Amino acid sequence: MPDDAPQVKIDKTRELGAEVLLYERDDEVRAKVAAEIAEKRGAVLVRPFDDIDVIAGQGTVGLEIAEQAAEAGIEPDAVLVPCGGGGLISGTAIALQDRWPDLPVYAVEPEGFDDTTRSLAAGRRVRNEGGLTSFCDSLLSPLPGEITFAINHARLRGGLAVSDRSVATAMAAAFGMLRLVAEPGGAVALAAALEGKFDCRGKTVVVVCSGGNVSPETFTQALATAQSA
Amino acid sequence: MPDDAPQVKIDKTRELGAEVLLYERDDEVRAKVAAEIAEKRGAVLVRPFDDIDVIAGQGTVGLEIAEQAAEAGIEPDAVLVPCGGGGLISGTAIALQDRWPDLPVYAVEPEGFDDTTRSLAAGRRVRNEGGLTSFCDSLLSPLPGEITFAINHARLRGGLAVSDRSVATAMAAAFGMLRLVAEPGGAVALAAALEGKFDCRGKTVVVVCSGGNVSPETFTQALATAQSA
Repeated sequence: MPDDAPQVKIDKTRELGAEVLLYERDDEVRAKVAAEIAEKRGAVLVRPFDDIDVIAGQGTVGLEIAEQAAEAGIEPDAVLVPCGGGGLISGTAIALQDRWPDLPVYAVEPEGFDDTTRSLAAGRRVRNEGGLTSFCDSLLSPLPGEITFAINHARLRGGLAVSDRSVATAMAAAFGMLRLVAEPGGAVALAAALEGKFDCRGKTVVVVCSGGNVSPETFTQALATAQSA
Repeated sequence: MPDDAPQVKIDKTRELGAEVLLYERDDEVRAKVAAEIAEKRGAVLVRPFDDIDVIAGQGTVGLEIAEQAAEAGIEPDAVLVPCGGGGLISGTAIALQDRWPDLPVYAVEPEGFDDTTRSLAAGRRVRNEGGLTSFCDSLLSPLPGEITFAINHARLRGGLAVSDRSVATAMAAAFGMLRLVAEPGGAVALAAALEGKFDCRGKTVVVVCSGGNVSPETFTQALATAQSA
């Protein structure tokens, strides 16, 4: 994990029995560290997003949406999904569009880390410019994956970027209205809907809110930021 | 509502279109205020717990437990339920014991407000002694209801009382492990399980965690209390 991963994420992974090795957040460093460990130990490398099985697994979110929409008698007009390397959204889009082939699916990213949004517009993988920060620690990959972008380029309608402040407001809304704990990266799609970056008026919009690896400190700070807004 | 109800509960009820009238927390005052309004407006009084329809409605929690246990292939050994006036637990016990007639169901209450626990032991309704406080604002009724106690006396195995500090720890555990926002009164049963007031070792214990009417301030304070413990 990058050495700026939330302590709660590191601790919980260790509790589950894993050995956690930390590296300075950098995509090339990660690839190198992971390749070395895999080589030395004869281990199988499971990439965080650019892997068809990981994409298929995360795509079960799309299956859940389709099932729950059918139960509720809902036909969605659009779906907003948090996007880092693009694994969750590519799998989710495949599953959703199996049910609704023309359903618009949008990537939501933190401002300064909208590599998928810009890559979709450019038609090729574009790297984040760097030098910016966001507290959405789970969505900071520097550019889309090869496999994920091939899927997302073919399937996504576009992307949206949201500010850390609007993410904090969305976390507070999830707390107050849904009684859910969302990590910053898990709340970006909700932020896009709530702040009107995506105009939901008159539409049935599904928002994916996924991931709760957030420390009490960061959560408390997000609630305070939202109240001062 | 009592005038010390969480602001978030008052606000959300108003948002839903209700007129909210506040009174100084006192059971007799509440009964008097409610009776006067009902009389003056020809309104139907819906009691918070001592009402068979309210009990039946809250009892759907027991139906949900039975359904989900069947889906998961679980046979519970015991069920812990938060208890104020006793509505939630009496309905839940009826529903659970329809499926498992001998299932032990326990009331969990805040320390100083263990009127149901003491009433079960005494075999008659006993009032809280008063003079104590708890941040479990939803569980502060001064004595069990008539209808609820008749049911609970026949059905509950006993009661347990938990401290505010252990409730704060349970709220932090719900936050960190379950990603759920629980109000203090909603977390008492989880507190009893986690602090070992009820010994869960080797048993399959169902804990009801219900209610999320908690302000950001109280929630933040509970997380901080838990961390300092």
